Amino acid sequence: MNSDNIKDDYINKSQQLLQKYMVKIGDSVKLLSNKGDYNGIVMPRYESFNDDYIVIKLKSGYNIGILIENIKKITSDNSSNDSTTVLLNNNSRVEEHSKNFIRPKENNYTHDESDMHKPLPKILILSTGGTIASKIDYRTGGVTSILSASELYEIFPEISNYASIYPEFLFNEYSENLTPNHWSLLSERVSYAILNERYDGIIVSHGTDTIHYTSSAMSFALQNLSIPVVLVGSQRSSDRPSSDAFTNLLGAIKFITKTKFPGIFVCMHHTPSDNIIACHLGTRLRKNHTSKRNAFQSLDSIPFALIDNSEIVCNTDLKRINEGNNVTKKFISKTSFDNRVFLLKFYPGFDPTFLDHFLNSDYKVIILEGTGLGHINKNCFPYVEKLINAGIVIFMTSQCIYGRVQMTVYDTGRDLLDLGIIPLSDMGSETAMVKAMWALSNSSNMKDLVKIMKINVSNEVSDTSPLIF
Amino acid sequence: MNSDNIKDDYINKSQQLLQKYMVKIGDSVKLLSNKGDYNGIVMPRYESFNDDYIVIKLKSGYNIGILIENIKKITSDNSSNDSTTVLLNNNSRVEEHSKNFIRPKENNYTHDESDMHKPLPKILILSTGGTIASKIDYRTGGVTSILSASELYEIFPEISNYASIYPEFLFNEYSENLTPNHWSLLSERVSYAILNERYDGIIVSHGTDTIHYTSSAMSFALQNLSIPVVLVGSQRSSDRPSSDAFTNLLGAIKFITKTKFPGIFVCMHHTPSDNIIACHLGTRLRKNHTSKRNAFQSLDSIPFALIDNSEIVCNTDLKRINEGNNVTKKFISKTSFDNRVFLLKFYPGFDPTFLDHFLNSDYKVIILEGTGLGHINKNCFPYVEKLINAGIVIFMTSQCIYGRVQMTVYDTGRDLLDLGIIPLSDMGSETAMVKAMWALSNSSNMKDLVKIMKINVSNEVSDTSPLIF
Repeated sequence: MNSDNIKDDYINKSQQLLQKYMVKIGDSVKLLSNKGDYNGIVMPRYESFNDDYIVIKLKSGYNIGILIENIKKITSDNSSNDSTTVLLNNNSRVEEHSKNFIRPKENNYTHDESDMHKPLPKILILSTGGTIASKIDYRTGGVTSILSASELYEIFPEISNYASIYPEFLFNEYSENLTPNHWSLLSERVSYAILNERYDGIIVSHGTDTIHYTSSAMSFALQNLSIPVVLVGSQRSSDRPSSDAFTNLLGAIKFITKTKFPGIFVCMHHTPSDNIIACHLGTRLRKNHTSKRNAFQSLDSIPFALIDNSEIVCNTDLKRINEGNNVTKKFISKTSFDNRVFLLKFYPGFDPTFLDHFLNSDYKVIILEGTGLGHINKNCFPYVEKLINAGIVIFMTSQCIYGRVQMTVYDTGRDLLDLGIIPLSDMGSETAMVKAMWALSNSSNMKDLVKIMKINVSNEVSDTSPLIF
Repeated sequence: MNSDNIKDDYINKSQQLLQKYMVKIGDSVKLLSNKGDYNGIVMPRYESFNDDYIVIKLKSGYNIGILIENIKKITSDNSSNDSTTVLLNNNSRVEEHSKNFIRPKENNYTHDESDMHKPLPKILILSTGGTIASKIDYRTGGVTSILSASELYEIFPEISNYASIYPEFLFNEYSENLTPNHWSLLSERVSYAILNERYDGIIVSHGTDTIHYTSSAMSFALQNLSIPVVLVGSQRSSDRPSSDAFTNLLGAIKFITKTKFPGIFVCMHHTPSDNIIACHLGTRLRKNHTSKRNAFQSLDSIPFALIDNSEIVCNTDLKRINEGNNVTKKFISKTSFDNRVFLLKFYPGFDPTFLDHFLNSDYKVIILEGTGLGHINKNCFPYVEKLINAGIVIFMTSQCIYGRVQMTVYDTGRDLLDLGIIPLSDMGSETAMVKAMWALSNSSNMKDLVKIMKINVSNEVSDTSPLIF
């Protein structure tokens, strides 16, 4: 895990080719090849790339690696709108580009001369691992985590147009390996930054598998923030064609610097193309696709904000809610979690006797993912009753994902309410699980926990007023 | 549970009002009220309705109950396009309407004179309960199951324009209460009908909570069908404004009579309005909203067919697959299920020691709902290994809902493959659970079960060829 893994210089054959055409990394070029012609920016090479490829970032945002044996000609391309190609000695242009190529030495970033007159917003980037910080490992054929935040910065020099970046390595884990301990660690680091440092915003680079669980956790742990804290992931690793790492990161930076909205958010692609980045509320999103770049969706609302090249539009309803929640209140930092919570998905054929496993266990809370409006088979009722009598608190959410649990519509729901199951309106089941882990650790008794679960702490339910039970 | 619950005559005040304006149930009317004017058909009254309302079915498909104290005038409306109102003695028109109002006496339906010359397709409607067969219970404020299929027919006389209906009561349960035993019972009844009776199609009225689990179950239990078998549900009960019961049922009838496509399907609203009904493959849909009429979505494809007022369009890719699967092969009926299968949703903070519960249990199969491309925390690996060594077979699906499990992309996935976890491509986790219950009951050993799980039995994976592992 060090920056030696990144080489911005090409080697051997690829280096000779670039030298032949007098172009360098960061140059805007037109590349003619047997496979087609491409306009874009020459990207740095990775150590694990052999010398057979030149990597170009296309205007679409996709990176493409072109075999040098297929390359017929590379010409620098002065204007991105200019389709004519000019072959010239572009040393001066290289110099110009390299202004955007500033490499911070960890937390010791200094502005260049011109920046001194217009100080840029300061953004802390905390690296936690995942695809956005990974590259293909050609030894095994898969992807392994190896990039630090500073390495990310090195790859995406455009960032320095918008903000001064303070990259920091926090930990390096695929997000499926994260636990509530990681949520605490991350929340504590952000809390420290908010209380003791002067950043205009914080970005957390994070694997996408569980980014929505982590953003929920941080939304409960840290309330009434003074600055935006934005988690970003990428569905394709930074060095792969079609990576969304940079566009998501840039979306987060634009959101922070232009809106200054306090709160916990997640920035990911809103569309399969690079056109629009969505900024979701930390407690109201879900990963709904295994591989698409626009895998994430806001639950029961449009995203908090949409960001394109030229502007940022905000969901005015959510904007109002968020302002109401954060502006006048004191910053709260309660960063502990207790994982004695089980997320149980109900399904037909579920053996109700299985519920007895929880009777003599450490579990304190069960989040049920019921069917439809919040139902389970009536054959579970006596077992649910036993659990509730034993002091286990059971909350109801729906496996439908969208819509609201409504347990007064059908017999089943009303019977479950009578048993003591507590419905959670349109809180997502994943968010509910995280909230229960947080509430369990930050309440003095189970009555207190129930009270916390019922109120709207961080926009986790779309009800603007506290839930009514 | 008898048809006495339905009264097609209004009583007292509401009856007097209809008599005053000389309109009857089934009449197309224009109703002027203090709350607005409505064109539509006078619907029958339910026993549980008091005498304060007249119910009108609007052209949008919504039923609306209008307080009689708000009604200024009701006039019969000869043409649906005619906005002028004519007050006349419409006894002759009542007679005309009542031709569509034929009430079959259970399975003893007889065609009227005109039907004799053009025999209509015969459709068996099996009633199993749920919202489509329920109405509001005003005593408790909720909805309780009370309508039989024959009662449904009584409410929706238009059906007899398209088909001869043979309604049959099978059982009456909210779908959250259904178990694999119900799947067997239902599949056996359909199997008997296919082998011994001469229906052109079968409709199963079913609660929406688990309609997709049941359609999956029937798709495995009954293969290479000769006729269409369509499950229909409704998100709002038949007697409520905005009920989708009739439009879904009519969509199913149109699909059966016009396409004659053999297979197991589910017909539900494709849009929130009444414009388009979607017909989904039985193994490839999910309930994604708790309350919307268009709650169901096909997984990783467009629906098998879309049905509107004038035409039916089929997804040609799926049409081809379905033809390939069914046309030339012998009907298979394997209607048993074994519920020693656990559907386990992974989440951050999941305590891996919980997996030990399965070690000395009856469970034979675990369907894991992993994160992203099919991942779980590495702290689970030793526990997974113990389960696999103990002979429990573990399959991987994704909690993302959409997209394909791909376990060769990241270290985590490859490690899990090495442990012996078997990925199920883009099979939905609910469908995978049902398939495993079916495969467990219809295979001689676990090796056989794994083989069955890996092949595409009934379009449960979008791969057209058998999955490659």
